[in-house]
Amino acid sequence: MNAVCLLSGGLDSATSLACARRDGFQTYALSFDYGQRHRVELEAAARVATHLGAAEHKTIAIDLRAFGGSALTGDIDVPKGRATETMAGTIPVTYVPARNTVFLSIALAWAEVLGATDIFLGVNAVDYSGYPDCRPAYIEAFEQMANLATKAGVEGAMRLRIHTPLIHLSKAEIIQLGLSLGVDYSLTHSCYDPAGGRACGQCDSCQLRRAGFAEAGLVDPLEYAG
Amino acid sequence: MNAVCLLSGGLDSATSLACARRDGFQTYALSFDYGQRHRVELEAAARVATHLGAAEHKTIAIDLRAFGGSALTGDIDVPKGRATETMAGTIPVTYVPARNTVFLSIALAWAEVLGATDIFLGVNAVDYSGYPDCRPAYIEAFEQMANLATKAGVEGAMRLRIHTPLIHLSKAEIIQLGLSLGVDYSLTHSCYDPAGGRACGQCDSCQLRRAGFAEAGLVDPLEYAG
Repeated sequence: MNAVCLLSGGLDSATSLACARRDGFQTYALSFDYGQRHRVELEAAARVATHLGAAEHKTIAIDLRAFGGSALTGDIDVPKGRATETMAGTIPVTYVPARNTVFLSIALAWAEVLGATDIFLGVNAVDYSGYPDCRPAYIEAFEQMANLATKAGVEGAMRLRIHTPLIHLSKAEIIQLGLSLGVDYSLTHSCYDPAGGRACGQCDSCQLRRAGFAEAGLVDPLEYAG
Repeated sequence: MNAVCLLSGGLDSATSLACARRDGFQTYALSFDYGQRHRVELEAAARVATHLGAAEHKTIAIDLRAFGGSALTGDIDVPKGRATETMAGTIPVTYVPARNTVFLSIALAWAEVLGATDIFLGVNAVDYSGYPDCRPAYIEAFEQMANLATKAGVEGAMRLRIHTPLIHLSKAEIIQLGLSLGVDYSLTHSCYDPAGGRACGQCDSCQLRRAGFAEAGLVDPLEYAG
């Protein structure tokens, strides 16, 4: 059985890929070069794909900078030191418009070509930083749409499933799960605003990661700039 | 009011763009360079966007060839002289996996940045050549998913709508509608397999177009190779 696994190079997507392997899938890892500031994550994605034995790893270039509208691709500064605020429900400027929808759509195209019926996505509704496209209702709606979109869906040959193994886990639980599945988190990269290849330690993503390791009583193998 | 209008450069999408203008929208035309064989259509898209007064026209590059699986992007030959067969319900090899899903997702990203709640798509369920992602049930499912995917949807600020003004029209009716809205069809390009910049006249798309003009009792302004 083949599964397409979205792989950003961060902690969550690495753990999600490890879950696909645990569940017996041959994994096809998919990354995107979308003009993100933190492109060092693409190198992390390649390392993680090799480490976790992906059958193939593709990086698709798509220039989401053409539209602007996000701190991750545009000229807005990445906010620092406000993880608790973003967790309260507002949508932060690091949100990339329709990102998961675009990424899942492209994963769907690859799945269709591979004859795969499974897509793994490392989204999380607990520490989700307020992104609308990380919620369970969104994932279900995408699955429903996808089954109407495809050749195999029309012919009744397949029922596509979007797996979100981390969706109800805390960051600490994700880290514990990943470690139990042999994920080497020193290979991953989660920072929104790295400098000189090192994680900043201060953006939402770094703060959530550090808090997760602390809560799990574990040492984060990453070196932070601040 | 702004609307994002998917524009391939073909007859249908030009007519759909003209419908958006008729309905009072400021139009933002969106084309894709996805590794299609028939790239001459991108020049047609630029001509049509100018002709129909689009406020802006963007072409986004995304290499769907990376996955293979379609005669429009891969090495499979484009079939000739079998439009009637494909209309009987089988899905032809010119189907590009998840194409409309990928394109609509990227349109959604632009709409979100523009603050637009309307997307126009020139799909057609009558002469639809058997593509699963041209059916009304699919469009509705996409709309539902999109309203869960976006910032504005979550905040209840907007209700996204996918407009498909051609979905229940025959090719002849589409042509008559477009002419009534001032579309110059000599600027459009619909062929899947052009040679030397001229439409082949024999692929599914050319045959549907020619039959549409014939049925409407009109002269197609295009010159065909065969």
